Amino acid sequence: MLSKKKKGLLIVLSGPSGAGKGTICKALMKKEKNLKLSISATTRQPRSGEIEGKNYFFKSEEEFEKMIENDSFLEWAKVYDHYYGTPKDFVLKNLEEGNDVVLEIDIQGALKIKEKFPEGVFIFILPPSMEELKNRIKKRGTETEEEIIKRFKSAYEELNYVSRYNYVVINDSVEEAVEKIKAIIIAEKCRVDRNKDLYLEIKEGLV
Amino acid sequence: MLSKKKKGLLIVLSGPSGAGKGTICKALMKKEKNLKLSISATTRQPRSGEIEGKNYFFKSEEEFEKMIENDSFLEWAKVYDHYYGTPKDFVLKNLEEGNDVVLEIDIQGALKIKEKFPEGVFIFILPPSMEELKNRIKKRGTETEEEIIKRFKSAYEELNYVSRYNYVVINDSVEEAVEKIKAIIIAEKCRVDRNKDLYLEIKEGLV
Repeated sequence: MLSKKKKGLLIVLSGPSGAGKGTICKALMKKEKNLKLSISATTRQPRSGEIEGKNYFFKSEEEFEKMIENDSFLEWAKVYDHYYGTPKDFVLKNLEEGNDVVLEIDIQGALKIKEKFPEGVFIFILPPSMEELKNRIKKRGTETEEEIIKRFKSAYEELNYVSRYNYVVINDSVEEAVEKIKAIIIAEKCRVDRNKDLYLEIKEGLV
Repeated sequence: MLSKKKKGLLIVLSGPSGAGKGTICKALMKKEKNLKLSISATTRQPRSGEIEGKNYFFKSEEEFEKMIENDSFLEWAKVYDHYYGTPKDFVLKNLEEGNDVVLEIDIQGALKIKEKFPEGVFIFILPPSMEELKNRIKKRGTETEEEIIKRFKSAYEELNYVSRYNYVVINDSVEEAVEKIKAIIIAEKCRVDRNKDLYLEIKEGLV
């Protein structure tokens, strides 16, 4: 047994819109009950079926701006005219307690998180092809033609940010993508730079 | 599908003698039939049950020194008055063909491999405790009292080298250790720095 309580991992699932990070995240949370999902706050309208406090905390502009003032966000951004933000307390508390926290977040947000948590595990979800990405953005059906083109262009540009991440997972099968993410979490816990005290403890016979 | 054939991973299982890397390696190879095991050459006497060409290539001193002359080793070393070496051809050929190659090797050998293959996956197998390590060295029963003390002291010193590795896996249960190594292999294949061409190919629509 370890003498010191190990902090949890911050697992950041990110990628261009339409890559399927939402679907993968949902499947991952279903399989790995010990993971804690960070719920974002947003000022955008709920899509059909989205539930307050489960999918998002839906806020008015005024409420959101008040939270910014109170330094309640780990990061926040304005994307496509809406605010999105990651409430700070939930993440910090869980990591401190040794729980692994999952963040599903756009690329802009992930890069801000990386500045504060360089030790996080940054996973870039890739669509299997640009053609497939276009189909997925279209299928969502909640956007106008203009918005679809805007999203696709942006997704194309965003692929350049993959180099700032630790891992890349192609979403051609949700099940396989989830298995890969599970493996990444296990492997990260074995990384030498996350276990610096371990061999000292073994030497000293504390373990 | 990728347009370029990806090279295989070189997976180096290493650790102090008595940590159980041999047992773990055997269990891993049994579970993962696609992995290719590199067989070492040695001048030490076969232990009971060891088979030529399966456990080692057993060589005379003269034969081994000839191989050194012919530059046939990826690395070689003299440990406890015996030569050990990793034949070069098998490893290079398999990596080139896209096969993952496993090397089970002492720490001295692993560090030499790392100089030539910094992109290898270096896994340090730790015993659950120093007490357990002592028991395991004793149980092996093939060494004299003097040799046991020599091995234990050396194992104690060798723990310092863990920082040169990528991963550390504690061998308290062989099954769990094998699962961790399997996860590490999956995760490593997802690392961004091993997939640099991938997003370019996706952008260009080659995938």
